[in-house]
Amino acid sequence: MPVNLPLPDPASINTVAGLHIGTTMAGIRKANRRDVVVIHWPESATVAGVFTRNRFCAAPVQICQEHLAASVRPRALLVNTGCANAGTGERGLADARASCVELAGLLQCESTQVLPFSTGVILEPLPMDRLLAGLPAAVAQLGQSADGQRWLEAAQGIMTTDTQPKLVSRHAVIAGQPVNVTGICKGAGMIRPNMATMLGFIALDAQVPQAVLESWVRAAANTSFNRVTVDGDTSTNDSFVVVATGAGSLKIAGDDAASRALFEVIEAVAIELAQAIVRDGEGATKFIAINVQQGRSEQEVAQVAYAVAHSPLVKTAFFASDPNLGRILAAVGYAGVDDLEVEGIELYLDDVHVATRGGRHPQYLEADGQRVMKQAEITIRIMLGRGTHHTTVWTCDLSHDYVSINADYRS
Amino acid sequence: MPVNLPLPDPASINTVAGLHIGTTMAGIRKANRRDVVVIHWPESATVAGVFTRNRFCAAPVQICQEHLAASVRPRALLVNTGCANAGTGERGLADARASCVELAGLLQCESTQVLPFSTGVILEPLPMDRLLAGLPAAVAQLGQSADGQRWLEAAQGIMTTDTQPKLVSRHAVIAGQPVNVTGICKGAGMIRPNMATMLGFIALDAQVPQAVLESWVRAAANTSFNRVTVDGDTSTNDSFVVVATGAGSLKIAGDDAASRALFEVIEAVAIELAQAIVRDGEGATKFIAINVQQGRSEQEVAQVAYAVAHSPLVKTAFFASDPNLGRILAAVGYAGVDDLEVEGIELYLDDVHVATRGGRHPQYLEADGQRVMKQAEITIRIMLGRGTHHTTVWTCDLSHDYVSINADYRS
Repeated sequence: MPVNLPLPDPASINTVAGLHIGTTMAGIRKANRRDVVVIHWPESATVAGVFTRNRFCAAPVQICQEHLAASVRPRALLVNTGCANAGTGERGLADARASCVELAGLLQCESTQVLPFSTGVILEPLPMDRLLAGLPAAVAQLGQSADGQRWLEAAQGIMTTDTQPKLVSRHAVIAGQPVNVTGICKGAGMIRPNMATMLGFIALDAQVPQAVLESWVRAAANTSFNRVTVDGDTSTNDSFVVVATGAGSLKIAGDDAASRALFEVIEAVAIELAQAIVRDGEGATKFIAINVQQGRSEQEVAQVAYAVAHSPLVKTAFFASDPNLGRILAAVGYAGVDDLEVEGIELYLDDVHVATRGGRHPQYLEADGQRVMKQAEITIRIMLGRGTHHTTVWTCDLSHDYVSINADYRS
Repeated sequence: MPVNLPLPDPASINTVAGLHIGTTMAGIRKANRRDVVVIHWPESATVAGVFTRNRFCAAPVQICQEHLAASVRPRALLVNTGCANAGTGERGLADARASCVELAGLLQCESTQVLPFSTGVILEPLPMDRLLAGLPAAVAQLGQSADGQRWLEAAQGIMTTDTQPKLVSRHAVIAGQPVNVTGICKGAGMIRPNMATMLGFIALDAQVPQAVLESWVRAAANTSFNRVTVDGDTSTNDSFVVVATGAGSLKIAGDDAASRALFEVIEAVAIELAQAIVRDGEGATKFIAINVQQGRSEQEVAQVAYAVAHSPLVKTAFFASDPNLGRILAAVGYAGVDDLEVEGIELYLDDVHVATRGGRHPQYLEADGQRVMKQAEITIRIMLGRGTHHTTVWTCDLSHDYVSINADYRS
């Protein structure tokens, strides 16, 4: 069973002024499922994104980056699920461009103002006929600023193996002005984002200068989507985009208290969305935070955290609720920190002190480890005893269902 | 079902002159299983080894390296299964030393002439009473050069989650002289050796100078045990040791044709042993060779091969015999080769040309991919189109049984 939080009530989702959403069931891969999403925003908006560093980055990711760099500001995004349009060569690029041309015609903007996104099976061509045929129905739903129901439909319309749509919303009052921040994401497998996760979108109705938004999207990705992993597989389609519609009353000038306060709201939404991916990780039964402290550099704390997070032996032990905790020390040992002294290492499982100075803690009792291992949410704390850097990576366990889901994905 | 080759008939195993083997059931972790192995050789022998680079290297690995560096040449090795004596701090070191002292007393040699090895559960103390109590029975079996039955018992006595003992033997005539090379190893999980695998021993009865043997053990490890992976978890106890007893008639002087011929025999035994670990990989149903060609450096071809070999998505697709081959391209893309041009990449599954210039090959038919995926032994060939370096990594698929075995390991 996934470790999902309850789905928010659509009535609790904050409307982002100026942002319109339309979705449809285009039959991209399967009938009767929402699989095309169009999001449209006003000319006043600024938009910034970060994308996968996978060298096999998908055609839409390439076009998206090209369009973000164009001289005209983006006005819309188009997402399909069911097909990733990755590993599709020249034809894939032409298909992604053609879908932008078609939507731009319906929205009466330039094709370079449309950002395309795809998610689903790799190495198969996009079914262009069905995608293009679905666009008018999605566009017909645009009109007024999207309410919670539309946001929920958008979250549903980008799912692949997700068991639950992922939707997070916050309202804040900053410098006396109200601001709404609402985001969606998808992803459950092929999750080890490098710059951003599979697909994540956050919108807010403040007005934010382009340069500020660009720095925020990088910073927020680094502490959220870039700190979760399900299986260590970095996707070809990872994309994280933030749209500031500028249609609300809050206006951000530059680096001041209001700016920092708004960034913190965006970052909190990004972290909750990223954690939602791990909570819904393919086959997940445990939500695990790996907190590494006292490292010499940011790189080494991340290396250690990811070595533990990616170890199939650690992940299966958590699935079994078996406190076979030597596997965690083994992963710390092979994390690639060449001069690590094991005598300096302390290991905690929640409040239980498991290992000290490289060996089992004299007061450690297996019953205490067992108690924590049975929980659905667990924090592993590793102290390296050699510096002041720290980080947290969130992951899940490795279960029979992960194997089943991925053995059967295409069938 | 593992992809094991048939177990060799003990009658076909070549006796290595001068090498004696004794085993016993000491009840280290479980009753009625062979779990202690003693191997003894004459003063004429040279011995060399390579060991895990895991920073949490086990106590016996540390003592073993200390004893190999001592002024007297090793005369024996002592292995126990059931407990890895890793993550055991000062007590673990004292236990490993004490077991060497006890065996040295029985064999009438120095304690620094005994090399200790342990494998099994991490973070638990070695049950010294049972280990020491078992030694006389094992020593009582020494006496004449070990025959195939004794070798088979030694291979059984070092198993953990292995479903089959791993034993490879060759006879050759080099420079007119006969030579026998016989080896054993163990390992099925926590397999991603870095310098050597869990436990591998090869013995030969030629006389080989110490410096030559040391260069051979490093070179043979690099093309064999350092090229297999089951789950990417580098063990705390990896050790690979070669003993040249010097009791046969072949004498190696230095770098000549006879020397190269003998190295090739040892390397072939090491590769077959290493492959045996993958064939018996925990839960394995497929034996997969990943051959990466046309790379710019040895490092980048290894990076790409390991990225594919460690991808849970690739491994589950092989388990399902599902030609979801975009997952292979995705792994190539995130392997960390920053300037890789996907347009140069060709992908073959055995004889089937799957992808060309970064996209699906126009003549590729899913039925052809399906045919190969159903085989028990598969070669993935990836051409990077940018150089002349190449390597092969051997791995297995990721199945339900891997999860079951590792969720239940200690119970």
